[in-house]
Amino acid sequence: MIKYPNKKQVEPKTKNYANLGMTLEADIDVTNTFYLNQGIAVIHKKPTPIQVVNVSYPARNKAKIVEAYYKTPSTTDFNGVFKGRYIDFDAKETNSKTSMPLKNVHQHQIEHLQSVVKHGGIAFLIVHFKYYNEYFLLPSSVLLKYWDDHLHNNGRKSIPYSAFKKETYTINFGYMPRLDYLSVVDKYFID
Amino acid sequence: MIKYPNKKQVEPKTKNYANLGMTLEADIDVTNTFYLNQGIAVIHKKPTPIQVVNVSYPARNKAKIVEAYYKTPSTTDFNGVFKGRYIDFDAKETNSKTSMPLKNVHQHQIEHLQSVVKHGGIAFLIVHFKYYNEYFLLPSSVLLKYWDDHLHNNGRKSIPYSAFKKETYTINFGYMPRLDYLSVVDKYFID
Repeated sequence: MIKYPNKKQVEPKTKNYANLGMTLEADIDVTNTFYLNQGIAVIHKKPTPIQVVNVSYPARNKAKIVEAYYKTPSTTDFNGVFKGRYIDFDAKETNSKTSMPLKNVHQHQIEHLQSVVKHGGIAFLIVHFKYYNEYFLLPSSVLLKYWDDHLHNNGRKSIPYSAFKKETYTINFGYMPRLDYLSVVDKYFID
Repeated sequence: MIKYPNKKQVEPKTKNYANLGMTLEADIDVTNTFYLNQGIAVIHKKPTPIQVVNVSYPARNKAKIVEAYYKTPSTTDFNGVFKGRYIDFDAKETNSKTSMPLKNVHQHQIEHLQSVVKHGGIAFLIVHFKYYNEYFLLPSSVLLKYWDDHLHNNGRKSIPYSAFKKETYTINFGYMPRLDYLSVVDKYFID
């Protein structure tokens, strides 16, 4: 077999819909629409927070924002209700083959996930390892363990891919639903 | 007593903090911050959805939105978790002395509230009658009753103030928390 000296060679063999240029966020959005339409759950992405500085009114009742800036979200991107339980999560993608850097998660998101769990909600991250085209549901408990270890015990500043294989749950990528994370939630987080 | 021919005369006698120019949304925001800091609940307002059309980059890593428009929200403005339960609501203000017009509520919000209840969440509106400076927690069940009656039985297109007095719950306005709607939720919606 000829070894071509280009990057394509190292791409994983398993092709799926994620290769069609969809982002993780878009994949979750179509999944949530499926859940909503099928009466499975009500989960939405929150709008991106934007600080509006200046608005012009080119016509009556028509507001045009002419100066605004993206703000850092104070919570996670997705929340809703499934089987009576409050669901809260964020989506993270990494190009790394070996680990997910903890710097991908903000301190305020950690605090938010902690609060959610304290009040009886179900909190997690959906993590996409783009290199492997693999999706994992990372429970907040596992995330917090690595976070605390890094912060207080000078532990590693990323969660290794091997830990994802051992300590988290694989989310299957399919047609409908595309990323069936709620079947993981149902199986492992709801009695 | 002299009758002054101005509007101030008809203002309600009971003055409270709501007269200091705060909007209902701001009052709910400070209430939610209080709930969060006191470890009572995690409830946030969703950012206003904005359709970004054009972004300029005056400096590296600095995105300036130069053309954008407000979008109609597809859900309600507030949600979160309280005592393990999913909480979902919107805030409405009315200047009317006699009723809250149903047109203040959008069809998609009605559908959203219905879905939330179906999945075991607690859904309601917080309604502020500005004239009386009174706040009510309007359960989604009562809202839906009037909505259906209007839609299918040619019923009235508003919920009368008298119905608020009889069929909904008064929310007390205070110092901390400012609008203690969760004490109503706790008392009437959680076993």
